[in-house]
Amino acid sequence: MKTTPEIIGYLAAILTTASFLPQAILTIKTKDTKSLSLSMYAMFTLGVLFWLLYGLSIADKAIIFANSITLILAAAILSVKIYNRLYNKG
Amino acid sequence: MKTTPEIIGYLAAILTTASFLPQAILTIKTKDTKSLSLSMYAMFTLGVLFWLLYGLSIADKAIIFANSITLILAAAILSVKIYNRLYNKG
Repeated sequence: MKTTPEIIGYLAAILTTASFLPQAILTIKTKDTKSLSLSMYAMFTLGVLFWLLYGLSIADKAIIFANSITLILAAAILSVKIYNRLYNKG
Repeated sequence: MKTTPEIIGYLAAILTTASFLPQAILTIKTKDTKSLSLSMYAMFTLGVLFWLLYGLSIADKAIIFANSITLILAAAILSVKIYNRLYNKG
């Protein structure tokens, strides 16, 4: 049985995690990262890693689940942005 | 006194929250949202609202603090994206 906070947590996790999927698909498909902030994705990717460590340290399944997937998607977007910054414009 | 999970949680909160500030500044300054995914920001903004409700329901200060600010910044970016989608290209 799930408690109400757990259900809200899983809804939050599903939405914020799934949200990075269309951005990752758009970024990988178009390779366009001009309006994406490098500072944002650098800080965000590191921050999501800390959320994952936080979730592990308090054994919160919603936080662990959400941030594991978000970390992969954010790192993918960050990689395209860094590639463009190094080899292209933007 | 803060426990180790609390410190990790606050570090995570500061990084992921602060990360949306350079994106919001870039988006508001340039008005360029071409490489930003509308689906991402719509889902993400709603998801952050659910994280805020989750934080309130388990009375977790790090989650409440992070998501209150992230909600404002994500909503600002989403607003520019929707404006551009309605009145401009992108």
